[in-house]
Amino acid sequence: MTTTTDRPAPTAGVTAPAGFRASGVTAGLKPSGRPDLALIVNDGPLQVGAAVFTTNRVQGAPVKWSRQVVSDGVVSAVVMNSGGANVSTGVAGFQDAHSTAERVAEALGVSAGDVVVGSTGLIGERLPREILLAGVDQAVAALSSDGGPAAAVAIMTTDTVPKTSEITIPGDAGAWTVGGMAKGAGMLAPALATMLCVITTDAVVDAELADQALRTATARTFDRVDSDGCMSTSDTVVLLASGASGVRPDPSGFLGAVESVCADLARQLVADAEGANHDIAITVNGATTEEAAVAVGRAVARSNLFKAAIYGNDPNWGRVLAQVGTVPESVAPFDPDDVDVTINGVQVCRSGAGYQDRSLVDLASQRLVTVLVDLHAGDAIATIWTNDLTHAYVTENSEYST
Amino acid sequence: MTTTTDRPAPTAGVTAPAGFRASGVTAGLKPSGRPDLALIVNDGPLQVGAAVFTTNRVQGAPVKWSRQVVSDGVVSAVVMNSGGANVSTGVAGFQDAHSTAERVAEALGVSAGDVVVGSTGLIGERLPREILLAGVDQAVAALSSDGGPAAAVAIMTTDTVPKTSEITIPGDAGAWTVGGMAKGAGMLAPALATMLCVITTDAVVDAELADQALRTATARTFDRVDSDGCMSTSDTVVLLASGASGVRPDPSGFLGAVESVCADLARQLVADAEGANHDIAITVNGATTEEAAVAVGRAVARSNLFKAAIYGNDPNWGRVLAQVGTVPESVAPFDPDDVDVTINGVQVCRSGAGYQDRSLVDLASQRLVTVLVDLHAGDAIATIWTNDLTHAYVTENSEYST
Repeated sequence: MTTTTDRPAPTAGVTAPAGFRASGVTAGLKPSGRPDLALIVNDGPLQVGAAVFTTNRVQGAPVKWSRQVVSDGVVSAVVMNSGGANVSTGVAGFQDAHSTAERVAEALGVSAGDVVVGSTGLIGERLPREILLAGVDQAVAALSSDGGPAAAVAIMTTDTVPKTSEITIPGDAGAWTVGGMAKGAGMLAPALATMLCVITTDAVVDAELADQALRTATARTFDRVDSDGCMSTSDTVVLLASGASGVRPDPSGFLGAVESVCADLARQLVADAEGANHDIAITVNGATTEEAAVAVGRAVARSNLFKAAIYGNDPNWGRVLAQVGTVPESVAPFDPDDVDVTINGVQVCRSGAGYQDRSLVDLASQRLVTVLVDLHAGDAIATIWTNDLTHAYVTENSEYST
Repeated sequence: MTTTTDRPAPTAGVTAPAGFRASGVTAGLKPSGRPDLALIVNDGPLQVGAAVFTTNRVQGAPVKWSRQVVSDGVVSAVVMNSGGANVSTGVAGFQDAHSTAERVAEALGVSAGDVVVGSTGLIGERLPREILLAGVDQAVAALSSDGGPAAAVAIMTTDTVPKTSEITIPGDAGAWTVGGMAKGAGMLAPALATMLCVITTDAVVDAELADQALRTATARTFDRVDSDGCMSTSDTVVLLASGASGVRPDPSGFLGAVESVCADLARQLVADAEGANHDIAITVNGATTEEAAVAVGRAVARSNLFKAAIYGNDPNWGRVLAQVGTVPESVAPFDPDDVDVTINGVQVCRSGAGYQDRSLVDLASQRLVTVLVDLHAGDAIATIWTNDLTHAYVTENSEYST
């Protein structure tokens, strides 16, 4: 499979900010023999960490482990593997995650309780512990201050391209940087995706600001990507702050930079969703609240019928309207007879009925489809991202584990 | 497209009970030239009627009209067309529905306010009124006491087979019958499907019992079919009682008979879902409440990943468990580490981890897939029906309107 967006090689990502080393190696967890183990180390001087995890009640062993790790706001390193999610693997699976953290901690001379673990891949299979631990040793040996791109490659599963991002903010007191990497393709859903993401920064921030910035940024970015409505058991987004720039940004500036990197990574996830031909941005305008706008956008994003129509290059506004109507009035007050729908610039529905001719809408030549739903009920707005439902999606997800 | 279930020609359906005439004719609404207009008349002596409709806030003109009709518990006739849903068609569309009822009423000598109208097909296009009204005249002329099968054919859209059902209950006071017909394939969702359904009975029942029986039966049958999670704008299920048998059944017996016919029709809808290779029955056992069981079953039924895996004949219990975990604890209390999953008789997951080898599960040779999820949290049980996600589903729904 090839991606339809031409992207350059991965950028520095997690090693763009000062104070970090990273590596990506081939431990041997994947039958394909591709890189499968990434390590990111925070060399300080600060060891601030925060994380958000899946809200799925079925959670991988690494998620259970890492929740404990981040609870004190201190994280020294993050180790992540592809080639197996370590979910539904019982007590032994939790011990595998624990042992992985222990091995990293020993090699780095830090506490195992400060090592976040993330895993992605199939559910229900144990990871081969000895292969994993030998891989950790390899990863430690390979650590370097320009290892970000290799780390981004090592966490890929069905991704066709690695995803990295970074932004540097200049200022009177000096510049500071936020970098990041993510993996995930398909199964992107609210409350995150089957997604592993590491955000790093050399800004001077405390654990409270790190946590607040990460929660706000993920709520507005990753949580609004809804590729196929499935919520993973392994989603983990970690933020590490080294303080190595010596610059303490104002909180809103820091939040903005973290959100910017998260938004860029989220956009890359959509562009690489499994088997998609179109990226679809559903913007709901004129809602009474942002929550109402999100609920309406998500309802549209969840419609297989609508997503299949877009695959057929059919601007089927009837299927949009039918989904808008499924949102309870208690969640999103609006009058169905006031709703407008505009697709790629053509207002195909006005006041709940057909308006401009749908044949005017060009979908066939566009990767990006913008759907604008105006509820005419208030001033709030939100955008949800999804993809079309294609034959390739069915192929990929019916053949993944067999 | 051919269906994989061999079904006989439609049975009597709505004309199985005494006191009804029906017809199905070709008005000319469908480009295919297939039958597209059905009429069902209740000749009494009773004219009891009840109905349930979609809960979508975007509703077709026929739904808006028919809600008023059934509000007094009296229905004389039902006219239903395929070839156009008459949704999002503005004031003119409502007038089309009204005019259709008027024409039926004039021809039959009844009140237009006692004529239910149902329409199915594309959203957003006006129906050609003159063709529709001429079709009504045809349908009236064609009415007969054995017209049930023709009516069942005339409401088909993407259905590959007409759906009819009937049951006769003997008793000391004499026998009484419940009959029915339905259309719908794909877009089957909670709060009904893109579905038109007419249930008839010659039992002596009042409007209150008719309404109660219909609501209870649809909640347990059609509402538990969740083919693709999309809720239609046109769903209509009507119950007509003629009283022609002279027998007044006990309420629980009546409810049971109506539910039996609804369950049979719902099962036929699943078997004919657009492009499906497998029918999937997800039974959730050991729930604290029936509502909890339904919520868990529905979460599994909504997973594109799970449904694509079944298409690939992969008994991917990890995707089942991942969906079970998305249900909030406030809705369904259970311990994720206690959950068992059995697929086609093989317990592939026990206490939240892999158990019997998934290669023991035979899916390839079976149309029916039974997924049993045991939450071990209580005594309640419920079954949700869905289908696998196939290439043919994508094809059919990406090419439907273009």
